[in-house]
Amino acid sequence: MPSSTRTCADIGEDELIASLSSILPSSSPGVTGIGDDCAVISREDGTSTLLKVDAIQEGVHYFPGTDPKLIGRKAVARVASDMAAMGGSLDHILVTLACSPETLEKELLSIYEGMQQFLAECGASIVGGETTSLAPGAPLLLSISGEGKALKPILRSGGQADDILYVTGELGGSLDGHHLTFQPRIEEGQWLSKNAPPSAMMDLSDGLAQDLPRLAKASQTGYQIAPEKLPRKPHLSIHHAMTDGEDYELLFALSPSLTQTLEQHWPFDTPLTRIGRLTTIEDSTPFTQTGWQHFTDS
Amino acid sequence: MPSSTRTCADIGEDELIASLSSILPSSSPGVTGIGDDCAVISREDGTSTLLKVDAIQEGVHYFPGTDPKLIGRKAVARVASDMAAMGGSLDHILVTLACSPETLEKELLSIYEGMQQFLAECGASIVGGETTSLAPGAPLLLSISGEGKALKPILRSGGQADDILYVTGELGGSLDGHHLTFQPRIEEGQWLSKNAPPSAMMDLSDGLAQDLPRLAKASQTGYQIAPEKLPRKPHLSIHHAMTDGEDYELLFALSPSLTQTLEQHWPFDTPLTRIGRLTTIEDSTPFTQTGWQHFTDS
Repeated sequence: MPSSTRTCADIGEDELIASLSSILPSSSPGVTGIGDDCAVISREDGTSTLLKVDAIQEGVHYFPGTDPKLIGRKAVARVASDMAAMGGSLDHILVTLACSPETLEKELLSIYEGMQQFLAECGASIVGGETTSLAPGAPLLLSISGEGKALKPILRSGGQADDILYVTGELGGSLDGHHLTFQPRIEEGQWLSKNAPPSAMMDLSDGLAQDLPRLAKASQTGYQIAPEKLPRKPHLSIHHAMTDGEDYELLFALSPSLTQTLEQHWPFDTPLTRIGRLTTIEDSTPFTQTGWQHFTDS
Repeated sequence: MPSSTRTCADIGEDELIASLSSILPSSSPGVTGIGDDCAVISREDGTSTLLKVDAIQEGVHYFPGTDPKLIGRKAVARVASDMAAMGGSLDHILVTLACSPETLEKELLSIYEGMQQFLAECGASIVGGETTSLAPGAPLLLSISGEGKALKPILRSGGQADDILYVTGELGGSLDGHHLTFQPRIEEGQWLSKNAPPSAMMDLSDGLAQDLPRLAKASQTGYQIAPEKLPRKPHLSIHHAMTDGEDYELLFALSPSLTQTLEQHWPFDTPLTRIGRLTTIEDSTPFTQTGWQHFTDS
Protein backbone atom coordinates (compact mmCIF):
# COMPACT_ATOMS: atom_id res chain seq x y z
CA MET A 1 0.00 0.00 0.00
CA PRO A 2 1.43 3.43 -0.89
CA SER A 3 2.16 5.32 2.30
CA SER A 4 0.29 8.37 1.02
CA THR A 5 -3.07 6.62 1.29
CA ARG A 6 -2.58 4.66 4.52
CA THR A 7 -5.28 5.32 7.10
CA CYS A 8 -5.29 5.02 10.87
CA ALA A 9 -7.30 1.82 10.52
CA ASP A 10 -4.65 0.36 8.18
CA ILE A 11 -1.75 0.86 10.53
CA GLY A 12 -3.30 0.54 14.00
CA GLU A 13 -2.62 2.55 17.13
CA ASP A 14 0.89 1.30 17.97
CA GLU A 15 2.25 2.00 14.51
CA LEU A 16 0.47 5.35 14.40
CA ILE A 17 2.10 6.41 17.66
CA ALA A 18 5.50 5.29 16.39
CA SER A 19 4.92 7.22 13.18
CA LEU A 20 3.87 10.42 14.97
CA SER A 21 6.75 10.10 17.41
CA SER A 22 9.17 10.00 14.50
CA ILE A 23 8.30 13.67 13.79
CA LEU A 24 9.50 14.76 17.19
CA PRO A 25 13.06 15.61 18.23
CA SER A 26 14.76 12.64 19.87
CA SER A 27 15.33 14.65 23.04
CA SER A 28 14.21 17.85 24.71
CA PRO A 29 16.35 19.83 27.15
CA GLY A 30 15.50 19.00 30.74
CA VAL A 31 12.98 16.30 29.79
CA THR A 32 13.34 12.56 30.33
CA GLY A 33 10.88 9.74 30.44
CA ILE A 34 9.11 10.30 27.12
CA GLY A 35 7.51 6.92 26.42
CA ASP A 36 7.75 6.08 30.13
CA ASP A 37 4.72 6.19 32.46
CA CYS A 38 5.14 9.98 32.73
CA ALA A 39 7.35 12.63 31.21
CA VAL A 40 9.80 14.04 33.75
CA ILE A 41 10.69 17.75 33.69
CA SER A 42 13.77 18.59 35.77
CA ARG A 43 13.45 21.81 37.76
CA GLU A 44 16.19 24.13 38.97
CA ASP A 45 15.29 23.44 42.61
CA GLY A 46 16.13 19.76 42.16
CA THR A 47 12.56 18.47 42.08
CA SER A 48 10.85 17.04 39.02
CA THR A 49 7.48 17.81 37.50
CA LEU A 50 5.60 14.82 36.08
CA LEU A 51 3.25 15.20 33.11
CA LYS A 52 0.92 12.56 31.65
CA VAL A 53 -2.15 12.44 29.43
CA ASP A 54 -4.49 9.45 29.28
CA ALA A 55 -7.94 9.01 27.75
CA ILE A 56 -10.73 6.53 28.37
CA GLN A 57 -13.65 5.85 26.06
CA GLU A 58 -17.03 4.20 26.52
CA GLY A 59 -17.05 0.70 25.03
CA VAL A 60 -13.24 0.43 25.19
CA HIS A 61 -12.33 1.16 28.80
CA TYR A 62 -15.74 0.64 30.38
CA PHE A 63 -19.08 -0.78 29.37
CA PRO A 64 -22.18 1.36 28.69
CA GLY A 65 -24.25 1.43 31.86
CA THR A 66 -21.25 1.75 34.21
CA ASP A 67 -21.84 3.96 37.26
CA PRO A 68 -20.69 7.38 36.00
CA LYS A 69 -18.89 8.10 39.28
CA LEU A 70 -16.68 5.08 38.63
CA ILE A 71 -16.02 6.31 35.08
CA GLY A 72 -14.71 9.60 36.45
CA ARG A 73 -12.78 7.81 39.15
CA LYS A 74 -11.14 5.41 36.70
CA ALA A 75 -10.07 8.16 34.31
CA VAL A 76 -8.23 10.01 37.08
CA ALA A 77 -6.94 6.92 38.91
CA ARG A 78 -5.20 5.69 35.75
CA VAL A 79 -3.20 8.92 35.64
CA ALA A 80 -2.52 8.70 39.38
CA SER A 81 -1.20 5.17 38.81
CA ASP A 82 1.23 6.52 36.20
CA MET A 83 2.46 9.09 38.73
CA ALA A 84 2.81 6.30 41.34
CA ALA A 85 4.90 4.33 38.84
CA MET A 86 7.48 7.16 38.93
CA GLY A 87 7.45 7.32 42.73
CA GLY A 88 5.53 10.58 42.54
CA SER A 89 2.23 12.23 43.41
CA LEU A 90 -0.66 13.54 41.32
CA ASP A 91 -1.31 17.21 42.11
CA HIS A 92 -3.46 18.82 39.40
CA ILE A 93 -5.50 17.69 36.42
CA LEU A 94 -7.00 19.23 33.27
CA VAL A 95 -10.09 17.53 31.83
CA THR A 96 -11.20 17.19 28.21
CA LEU A 97 -14.75 15.84 27.98
CA ALA A 98 -16.19 15.00 24.55
CA CYS A 99 -19.71 13.59 24.38
CA SER A 100 -22.80 13.40 22.23
CA PRO A 101 -25.47 16.11 22.53
CA GLU A 102 -27.99 13.72 24.09
CA THR A 103 -25.72 12.89 27.02
CA LEU A 104 -27.56 13.63 30.26
CA GLU A 105 -26.27 16.50 32.36
CA LYS A 106 -26.72 14.37 35.48
CA GLU A 107 -24.42 11.69 34.04
CA LEU A 108 -21.67 14.25 33.47
CA LEU A 109 -22.17 15.67 36.95
CA SER A 110 -21.71 12.18 38.38
CA ILE A 111 -18.53 11.68 36.34
CA TYR A 112 -17.20 14.93 37.80
CA GLU A 113 -18.24 13.87 41.31
CA GLY A 114 -16.35 10.62 40.87
CA MET A 115 -13.27 12.51 39.71
CA GLN A 116 -13.53 15.01 42.52
CA GLN A 117 -13.94 12.38 45.25
CA PHE A 118 -10.88 10.52 44.08
CA LEU A 119 -8.85 13.71 43.71
CA ALA A 120 -9.76 14.73 47.25
CA GLU A 121 -8.34 11.40 48.50
CA CYS A 122 -5.09 12.20 46.64
CA GLY A 123 -4.94 15.82 47.78
CA ALA A 124 -5.19 16.82 44.12
CA SER A 125 -7.54 19.12 42.21
CA ILE A 126 -9.09 19.92 38.83
CA VAL A 127 -7.69 23.23 37.58
CA GLY A 128 -9.16 23.45 34.10
CA GLY A 129 -11.36 21.75 31.56
CA GLU A 130 -12.70 21.73 28.04
CA THR A 131 -15.97 20.33 26.72
CA THR A 132 -16.60 19.32 23.12
CA SER A 133 -19.63 17.98 21.32
CA LEU A 134 -19.41 14.72 19.37
CA ALA A 135 -21.98 13.31 16.94
CA PRO A 136 -25.28 11.92 18.27
CA GLY A 137 -24.72 8.40 19.57
CA ALA A 138 -20.93 8.76 19.82
CA PRO A 139 -19.31 7.06 22.82
CA LEU A 140 -18.14 9.40 25.55
CA LEU A 141 -14.44 10.32 25.61
CA LEU A 142 -12.67 11.58 28.72
CA SER A 143 -9.06 12.69 28.48
CA ILE A 144 -7.15 13.60 31.64
CA SER A 145 -3.89 15.50 31.71
CA GLY A 146 -2.13 15.15 35.02
CA GLU A 147 0.61 17.24 36.60
CA GLY A 148 2.49 15.89 39.59
CA LYS A 149 5.88 15.83 41.20
CA ALA A 150 8.57 13.45 42.37
CA LEU A 151 11.69 14.01 44.43
CA LYS A 152 13.56 11.12 42.81
CA PRO A 153 11.59 9.91 39.79
CA ILE A 154 12.04 6.23 38.93
CA LEU A 155 12.20 5.50 35.20
CA ARG A 156 11.72 2.15 33.45
CA SER A 157 15.18 2.31 32.02
CA GLY A 158 17.51 1.91 35.01
CA GLY A 159 17.25 -1.83 35.58
CA GLN A 160 20.44 -3.97 35.75
CA ALA A 161 21.03 -7.67 35.26
CA ASP A 162 20.56 -9.50 38.59
CA ASP A 163 18.15 -6.90 40.00
CA ILE A 164 15.28 -8.61 41.78
CA LEU A 165 11.77 -8.22 40.33
CA TYR A 166 8.79 -7.52 42.59
CA VAL A 167 5.11 -6.82 42.10
CA THR A 168 2.65 -5.30 44.53
CA GLY A 169 -0.83 -6.70 45.13
CA GLU A 170 -2.45 -9.61 43.30
CA LEU A 171 -2.71 -9.93 39.55
CA GLY A 172 -5.52 -10.82 37.17
CA GLY A 173 -9.28 -10.76 37.17
CA SER A 174 -9.61 -7.02 36.66
CA LEU A 175 -12.89 -7.31 34.77
CA ASP A 176 -14.59 -8.46 37.97
CA GLY A 177 -14.59 -4.80 38.97
CA HIS A 178 -10.98 -4.10 39.90
CA HIS A 179 -10.52 -2.12 36.66
CA LEU A 180 -12.96 0.48 38.05
CA THR A 181 -12.11 0.43 41.74
CA PHE A 182 -8.35 -0.21 41.88
CA GLN A 183 -6.28 1.81 44.30
CA PRO A 184 -3.25 3.36 42.60
CA ARG A 185 -0.12 2.54 44.60
CA ILE A 186 0.80 6.17 45.25
CA GLU A 187 2.00 5.80 48.83
CA GLU A 188 3.83 2.59 48.03
CA GLY A 189 5.60 4.24 45.08
CA GLN A 190 6.67 7.23 47.15
CA TRP A 191 7.87 5.02 50.00
CA LEU A 192 9.94 2.93 47.58
CA SER A 193 11.48 6.00 45.98
CA LYS A 194 12.55 7.24 49.39
CA ASN A 195 13.48 4.05 51.29
CA ALA A 196 14.48 1.38 48.80
CA PRO A 197 14.75 3.10 45.41
CA PRO A 198 14.00 0.70 42.57
CA SER A 199 16.36 0.79 39.62
CA ALA A 200 13.31 0.61 37.32
CA MET A 201 9.55 0.78 37.90
CA MET A 202 6.26 0.89 35.97
CA ASP A 203 2.60 0.22 36.60
CA LEU A 204 0.97 -2.89 35.16
CA SER A 205 -1.73 -1.75 32.77
CA ASP A 206 -1.58 -4.31 29.95
CA GLY A 207 -0.67 -7.38 31.99
CA LEU A 208 2.72 -8.66 33.12
CA ALA A 209 3.20 -10.65 29.91
CA GLN A 210 3.26 -7.41 27.91
CA ASP A 211 4.57 -5.00 30.50
CA LEU A 212 7.63 -6.82 31.89
CA PRO A 213 9.19 -7.13 28.41
CA ARG A 214 8.73 -3.36 28.06
CA LEU A 215 10.56 -2.67 31.31
CA ALA A 216 13.34 -5.09 30.34
CA LYS A 217 13.65 -3.53 26.88
CA ALA A 218 13.84 0.00 28.34
CA SER A 219 16.56 -1.23 30.72
CA GLN A 220 18.36 -3.17 27.96
CA THR A 221 18.18 -6.35 30.00
CA GLY A 222 16.53 -9.74 29.82
CA TYR A 223 14.34 -11.32 32.49
CA GLN A 224 13.46 -14.62 34.14
CA ILE A 225 10.38 -15.13 36.25
CA ALA A 226 8.74 -18.04 37.99
CA PRO A 227 5.13 -17.89 36.77
CA GLU A 228 3.93 -20.21 39.52
CA LYS A 229 5.05 -17.61 42.08
CA LEU A 230 2.86 -14.84 40.70
CA PRO A 231 0.48 -13.47 43.31
CA ARG A 232 -2.94 -14.22 41.86
CA LYS A 233 -6.45 -13.36 42.83
CA PRO A 234 -8.27 -16.46 44.18
CA HIS A 235 -9.25 -19.13 41.65
CA LEU A 236 -7.37 -17.44 38.81
CA SER A 237 -5.05 -19.29 36.45
CA ILE A 238 -1.52 -18.07 35.85
CA HIS A 239 -2.56 -17.28 32.32
CA HIS A 240 -5.14 -14.79 33.58
CA ALA A 241 -2.68 -13.29 36.06
CA MET A 242 -0.18 -12.75 33.25
CA THR A 243 -2.52 -11.38 30.60
CA ASP A 244 -5.73 -9.89 32.02
CA GLY A 245 -4.32 -6.39 32.22
CA GLU A 246 -5.58 -3.38 34.17
CA ASP A 247 -3.91 -4.55 37.38
CA TYR A 248 -2.53 -1.08 38.15
CA GLU A 249 0.00 -2.72 40.46
CA LEU A 250 3.64 -1.69 40.60
CA LEU A 251 6.30 -3.80 38.90
CA PHE A 252 9.82 -2.88 39.93
CA ALA A 253 13.43 -4.01 39.82
CA LEU A 254 15.60 -3.63 42.91
CA SER A 255 19.32 -4.00 43.46
CA PRO A 256 20.04 -7.19 45.47
CA SER A 257 21.72 -4.95 48.05
CA LEU A 258 18.34 -3.36 48.89
CA THR A 259 16.06 -6.39 49.09
CA GLN A 260 16.61 -6.93 52.80
CA THR A 261 15.80 -3.28 53.56
CA LEU A 262 12.68 -3.53 51.45
CA GLU A 263 11.36 -6.74 52.88
CA GLN A 264 12.10 -5.86 56.50
CA HIS A 265 10.65 -2.36 56.39
CA TRP A 266 7.73 -2.54 53.92
CA PRO A 267 5.06 -0.79 55.99
CA PHE A 268 1.96 -1.56 53.92
CA ASP A 269 -0.72 -4.24 53.98
CA THR A 270 -0.37 -4.34 50.22
CA PRO A 271 1.22 -7.69 49.33
CA LEU A 272 4.76 -7.61 47.98
CA THR A 273 6.05 -10.58 45.99
CA ARG A 274 9.40 -11.50 44.46
CA ILE A 275 8.59 -12.89 41.02
CA GLY A 276 12.01 -13.23 39.41
CA ARG A 277 14.94 -11.13 38.28
CA LEU A 278 16.40 -9.16 35.44
CA THR A 279 19.17 -10.90 33.50
CA THR A 280 21.58 -10.12 30.73
CA ILE A 281 19.91 -10.17 27.36
CA GLU A 282 21.71 -13.45 26.58
CA ASP A 283 20.32 -15.16 29.67
CA SER A 284 16.75 -13.97 29.18
CA THR A 285 13.89 -16.45 29.21
CA PRO A 286 11.39 -14.46 27.16
CA PHE A 287 7.71 -15.09 27.53
CA THR A 288 6.08 -17.14 24.87
CA GLN A 289 2.48 -18.17 24.90
CA THR A 290 3.60 -21.72 25.67
CA GLY A 291 5.91 -20.43 28.38
CA TRP A 292 3.10 -20.26 30.87
CA GLN A 293 0.26 -21.85 28.90
CA HIS A 294 0.72 -25.19 30.66
CA PHE A 295 -0.30 -23.48 33.88
CA THR A 296 -3.57 -22.28 32.40
CA ASP A 297 -5.59 -25.19 33.66
CA SER A 298 -3.79 -25.52 36.94
CA MET B 1 -37.97 20.33 32.10
CA PRO B 2 -37.03 18.10 35.04
CA SER B 3 -33.33 18.45 35.70
CA SER B 4 -32.91 14.67 35.73
CA THR B 5 -33.54 14.43 31.98
CA ARG B 6 -31.74 17.54 30.76
CA THR B 7 -29.18 16.82 28.05
CA CYS B 8 -26.06 18.67 26.97
CA ALA B 9 -27.98 19.91 23.94
CA ASP B 10 -30.72 21.31 26.19
CA ILE B 11 -28.42 23.41 28.32
CA GLY B 12 -25.58 24.37 25.96
CA GLU B 13 -21.86 24.58 26.62
CA ASP B 14 -21.76 27.63 28.89
CA GLU B 15 -24.39 26.28 31.26
CA LEU B 16 -22.82 22.83 31.20
CA ILE B 17 -19.46 24.27 32.24
CA ALA B 18 -21.12 26.26 35.02
CA SER B 19 -22.93 23.13 36.16
CA LEU B 20 -19.78 20.98 36.19
CA SER B 21 -17.81 23.72 37.94
CA SER B 22 -20.40 23.74 40.73
CA ILE B 23 -19.18 20.25 41.72
CA LEU B 24 -15.68 21.50 42.39
CA PRO B 25 -14.36 23.09 45.57
CA SER B 26 -14.43 26.88 45.36
CA SER B 27 -10.69 27.03 45.96
CA SER B 28 -7.63 24.81 45.93
CA PRO B 29 -4.52 25.46 48.04
CA GLY B 30 -1.85 27.22 46.02
CA VAL B 31 -4.02 27.57 42.92
CA THR B 32 -5.42 30.79 41.47
CA GLY B 33 -6.75 31.73 38.08
CA ILE B 34 -9.34 28.97 37.63
CA GLY B 35 -11.62 30.40 34.93
CA ASP B 36 -8.84 32.74 33.86
CA ASP B 37 -6.76 32.16 30.70
CA CYS B 38 -4.64 29.65 32.64
CA ALA B 39 -4.63 28.11 36.09
CA VAL B 40 -1.72 29.37 38.18
CA ILE B 41 0.09 27.04 40.58
CA SER B 42 2.31 28.84 43.09
CA ARG B 43 5.64 27.15 43.72
CA GLU B 44 7.84 27.32 46.77
CA ASP B 45 10.66 28.93 44.80
CA GLY B 46 8.43 31.93 44.05
CA THR B 47 7.70 31.06 40.42
CA SER B 48 4.34 29.94 39.07
CA THR B 49 3.40 27.02 36.87
CA LEU B 50 0.68 27.71 34.31
CA LEU B 51 -1.70 24.96 33.17
CA LYS B 52 -4.26 25.14 30.38
CA VAL B 53 -6.25 22.72 28.22
CA ASP B 54 -7.88 23.71 24.93
CA ALA B 55 -9.43 21.66 22.14
CA ILE B 56 -10.13 22.38 18.50
CA GLN B 57 -12.47 20.45 16.26
CA GLU B 58 -12.90 20.19 12.51
CA GLY B 59 -15.93 22.16 11.34
CA VAL B 60 -15.92 24.33 14.46
CA HIS B 61 -12.42 25.81 14.68
CA TYR B 62 -11.33 25.16 11.10
CA PHE B 63 -12.89 24.13 7.84
CA PRO B 64 -12.42 20.69 6.27
CA GLY B 65 -9.63 20.97 3.72
CA THR B 66 -7.46 23.23 5.86
CA ASP B 67 -3.71 22.60 5.54
CA PRO B 68 -3.08 20.07 8.35
CA LYS B 69 0.11 21.85 9.39
CA LEU B 70 -1.96 24.93 10.15
CA ILE B 71 -4.43 22.83 12.15
CA GLY B 72 -1.60 21.60 14.37
CA ARG B 73 -0.14 25.08 14.58
CA LYS B 74 -3.46 26.64 15.58
CA ALA B 75 -4.17 24.09 18.31
CA VAL B 76 -0.85 24.82 19.99
CA ALA B 77 -0.80 28.55 19.30
CA ARG B 78 -4.14 28.98 21.08
CA VAL B 79 -2.64 27.53 24.24
CA ALA B 80 0.49 29.65 23.80
CA SER B 81 -1.76 32.71 23.55
CA ASP B 82 -3.35 31.80 26.89
CA MET B 83 0.12 31.58 28.44
CA ALA B 84 0.97 34.97 26.88
CA ALA B 85 -2.17 36.40 28.47
CA MET B 86 -0.68 35.60 31.89
CA GLY B 87 2.69 37.14 30.99
CA GLY B 88 4.14 33.63 30.80
CA SER B 89 5.73 31.13 28.44
CA LEU B 90 4.58 27.80 27.03
CA ASP B 91 7.11 25.08 27.85
CA HIS B 92 5.57 21.61 27.37
CA ILE B 93 2.43 20.13 25.86
CA LEU B 94 0.48 16.88 26.01
CA VAL B 95 -1.62 15.97 22.96
CA THR B 96 -4.93 14.09 22.76
CA LEU B 97 -5.81 13.23 19.18
CA ALA B 98 -9.19 11.67 18.41
CA CYS B 99 -10.06 10.88 14.81
CA SER B 100 -12.02 8.55 12.58
CA PRO B 101 -10.39 5.31 11.38
CA GLU B 102 -10.26 6.51 7.76
CA THR B 103 -8.12 9.53 8.63
CA LEU B 104 -4.94 9.46 6.57
CA GLU B 105 -1.69 8.87 8.39
CA LYS B 106 -0.05 11.58 6.28
CA GLU B 107 -2.63 14.13 7.48
CA LEU B 108 -1.85 13.35 11.11
CA LEU B 109 1.88 13.53 10.42
CA SER B 110 1.37 16.99 8.94
CA ILE B 111 -0.64 18.07 11.99
CA TYR B 112 2.24 16.95 14.19
CA GLU B 113 4.76 18.74 11.94
CA GLY B 114 2.73 21.93 12.29
CA MET B 115 2.68 21.56 16.06
CA GLN B 116 6.37 20.76 16.21
CA GLN B 117 7.42 23.71 14.02
CA PHE B 118 5.47 26.14 16.16
CA LEU B 119 6.76 24.59 19.40
CA ALA B 120 10.34 24.91 18.17
CA GLU B 121 9.74 28.65 17.65
CA CYS B 122 8.52 28.88 21.26
CA GLY B 123 11.33 26.74 22.68
CA ALA B 124 8.65 24.29 23.83
CA SER B 125 8.16 20.55 23.27
CA ILE B 126 5.63 17.71 23.10
CA VAL B 127 6.21 15.40 26.08
CA GLY B 128 3.30 12.99 25.77
CA GLY B 129 0.26 12.06 23.77
CA GLU B 130 -2.80 9.87 23.48
CA THR B 131 -4.65 8.72 20.37
CA THR B 132 -8.28 7.61 20.29
CA SER B 133 -10.51 6.31 17.53
CA LEU B 134 -13.83 8.02 16.80
CA ALA B 135 -16.65 6.73 14.58
CA PRO B 136 -16.19 6.70 10.79
CA GLY B 137 -16.83 10.19 9.43
CA ALA B 138 -16.41 11.91 12.80
CA PRO B 139 -14.67 15.29 12.68
CA LEU B 140 -11.12 15.32 14.04
CA LEU B 141 -10.63 16.52 17.62
CA LEU B 142 -7.30 17.80 18.92
CA SER B 143 -6.96 18.67 22.59
CA ILE B 144 -3.77 20.30 23.84
CA SER B 145 -2.74 20.55 27.49
CA GLY B 146 -0.06 23.13 28.02
CA GLU B 147 2.34 23.63 30.89
CA GLY B 148 4.26 26.87 31.20
CA LYS B 149 5.63 29.31 33.70
CA ALA B 150 5.44 32.95 34.71
CA LEU B 151 7.50 35.00 37.15
CA LYS B 152 4.64 37.37 37.92
CA PRO B 153 1.43 35.98 36.43
CA ILE B 154 -1.15 38.59 35.44
CA LEU B 155 -4.75 37.61 36.19
CA ARG B 156 -7.94 39.11 34.75
CA SER B 157 -9.10 40.10 38.17
CA GLY B 158 -6.72 42.85 39.28
CA GLY B 159 -8.11 45.76 37.28
CA GLN B 160 -9.04 49.04 39.06
CA ALA B 161 -11.32 51.90 38.09
CA ASP B 162 -9.35 54.49 36.05
CA ASP B 163 -6.83 51.93 34.76
CA ILE B 164 -6.13 52.56 31.09
CA LEU B 165 -7.18 49.87 28.59
CA TYR B 166 -4.86 48.85 25.75
CA VAL B 167 -4.93 46.27 22.99
CA THR B 168 -2.05 44.96 20.91
CA GLY B 169 -2.23 44.52 17.14
CA GLU B 170 -5.26 45.10 14.93
CA LEU B 171 -8.66 43.57 15.50
CA GLY B 172 -11.16 41.79 13.29
CA GLY B 173 -11.13 39.86 10.03
CA SER B 174 -9.70 36.68 11.51
CA LEU B 175 -11.47 34.43 9.01
CA ASP B 176 -9.28 35.86 6.23
CA GLY B 177 -6.58 33.52 7.58
CA HIS B 178 -5.43 35.22 10.79
CA HIS B 179 -7.24 32.57 12.85
CA LEU B 180 -4.74 30.01 11.51
CA THR B 181 -1.57 32.07 11.30
CA PHE B 182 -1.78 34.48 14.26
CA GLN B 183 1.31 35.06 16.31
CA PRO B 184 0.62 34.67 20.05
CA ARG B 185 1.93 37.73 21.90
CA ILE B 186 4.30 35.76 24.11
CA GLU B 187 7.23 38.19 24.10
CA GLU B 188 4.91 41.16 24.50
CA GLY B 189 3.18 39.55 27.47
CA GLN B 190 6.46 38.74 29.18
CA TRP B 191 7.83 42.23 28.53
CA LEU B 192 4.70 43.77 30.03
CA SER B 193 4.84 41.55 33.09
CA LYS B 194 8.42 42.65 33.71
CA ASN B 195 8.46 46.30 32.66
CA ALA B 196 4.95 47.72 32.99
CA PRO B 197 2.88 45.10 34.82
CA PRO B 198 -0.78 45.27 33.83
CA SER B 199 -3.31 45.11 36.64
CA ALA B 200 -5.36 42.72 34.50
CA MET B 201 -4.78 40.98 31.18
CA MET B 202 -6.37 38.42 28.85
CA ASP B 203 -6.16 37.36 25.23
CA LEU B 204 -8.96 38.24 22.83
CA SER B 205 -10.46 34.99 21.59
CA ASP B 206 -14.19 35.75 21.31
CA GLY B 207 -13.95 39.40 20.26
CA LEU B 208 -13.63 42.54 22.35
CA ALA B 209 -17.40 42.86 22.71
CA GLN B 210 -17.50 39.60 24.67
CA ASP B 211 -14.04 39.58 26.20
CA LEU B 212 -13.77 43.07 27.70
CA PRO B 213 -16.95 42.57 29.78
CA ARG B 214 -15.35 39.36 31.12
CA LEU B 215 -12.20 41.18 32.19
CA ALA B 216 -14.26 43.97 33.80
CA LYS B 217 -16.48 41.45 35.58
CA ALA B 218 -13.46 39.53 36.94
CA SER B 219 -12.01 42.85 38.16
CA GLN B 220 -15.38 44.01 39.55
CA THR B 221 -15.20 47.18 37.50
CA GLY B 222 -17.06 48.83 34.65
CA TYR B 223 -15.52 50.07 31.39
CA GLN B 224 -15.75 52.81 28.80
CA ILE B 225 -14.15 52.55 25.39
CA ALA B 226 -14.09 54.67 22.27
CA PRO B 227 -15.07 52.22 19.52
CA GLU B 228 -13.85 54.56 16.80
CA LYS B 229 -10.34 54.30 18.25
CA LEU B 230 -10.14 50.53 17.90
CA PRO B 231 -7.18 49.43 15.79
CA ARG B 232 -8.80 47.66 12.86
CA LYS B 233 -7.51 45.69 9.95
CA PRO B 234 -7.89 47.68 6.70
CA HIS B 235 -11.42 48.07 5.32
CA LEU B 236 -13.06 46.52 8.37
CA SER B 237 -16.02 48.04 10.17
CA ILE B 238 -15.97 48.65 13.91
CA HIS B 239 -18.61 45.97 14.22
CA HIS B 240 -16.26 43.38 12.77
CA ALA B 241 -13.38 44.58 14.93
CA MET B 242 -15.54 44.18 18.03
CA THR B 243 -17.15 40.84 17.26
CA ASP B 244 -15.17 38.74 14.77
CA GLY B 245 -13.25 36.92 17.47
CA GLU B 246 -10.03 34.90 17.20
CA ASP B 247 -7.85 38.01 17.33
CA TYR B 248 -5.45 36.44 19.84
CA GLU B 249 -4.26 39.92 20.75
CA LEU B 250 -3.65 41.04 24.32
CA LEU B 251 -6.19 43.21 26.13
CA PHE B 252 -4.85 44.74 29.33
CA ALA B 253 -5.52 47.35 31.98
CA LEU B 254 -2.65 49.48 33.24
CA SER B 255 -2.37 51.85 36.17
CA PRO B 256 -2.24 55.48 34.89
CA SER B 257 1.10 55.77 36.68
CA LEU B 258 2.63 53.26 34.25
CA THR B 259 1.30 54.46 30.90
CA GLN B 260 4.25 56.75 30.21
CA THR B 261 6.73 53.95 30.92
CA LEU B 262 4.79 51.65 28.64
CA GLU B 263 4.42 54.02 25.73
CA GLN B 264 8.01 55.30 25.86
CA HIS B 265 9.66 51.91 26.17
CA TRP B 266 7.45 49.51 24.18
CA PRO B 267 10.11 47.75 22.12
CA PHE B 268 7.95 45.88 19.62
CA ASP B 269 6.68 46.59 16.12
CA THR B 270 3.35 45.19 17.30
CA PRO B 271 0.90 48.13 17.43
CA LEU B 272 -0.24 49.22 20.88
CA THR B 273 -3.45 51.25 21.20
CA ARG B 274 -5.25 52.93 24.08
CA ILE B 275 -8.90 52.07 23.63
CA GLY B 276 -10.50 53.36 26.85
CA ARG B 277 -10.42 52.74 30.56
CA LEU B 278 -11.90 50.76 33.38
CA THR B 279 -14.47 52.61 35.51
CA THR B 280 -16.48 52.03 38.63
CA ILE B 281 -19.41 49.75 38.01
CA GLU B 282 -21.75 52.76 38.31
CA ASP B 283 -19.93 54.71 35.60
CA SER B 284 -19.75 51.82 33.16
CA THR B 285 -20.94 52.24 29.60
CA PRO B 286 -21.70 48.62 28.81
CA PHE B 287 -21.68 47.37 25.26
CA THR B 288 -25.02 46.94 23.63
CA GLN B 289 -25.49 45.91 20.05
CA THR B 290 -26.65 49.46 19.29
CA GLY B 291 -23.67 50.87 21.14
CA TRP B 292 -21.41 50.36 18.17
CA GLN B 293 -23.88 49.21 15.53
CA HIS B 294 -24.09 52.71 14.06
CA PHE B 295 -20.44 52.41 13.13
CA THR B 296 -21.06 49.23 11.16
CA ASP B 297 -21.46 50.98 7.83
CA SER B 298 -18.82 53.61 8.45
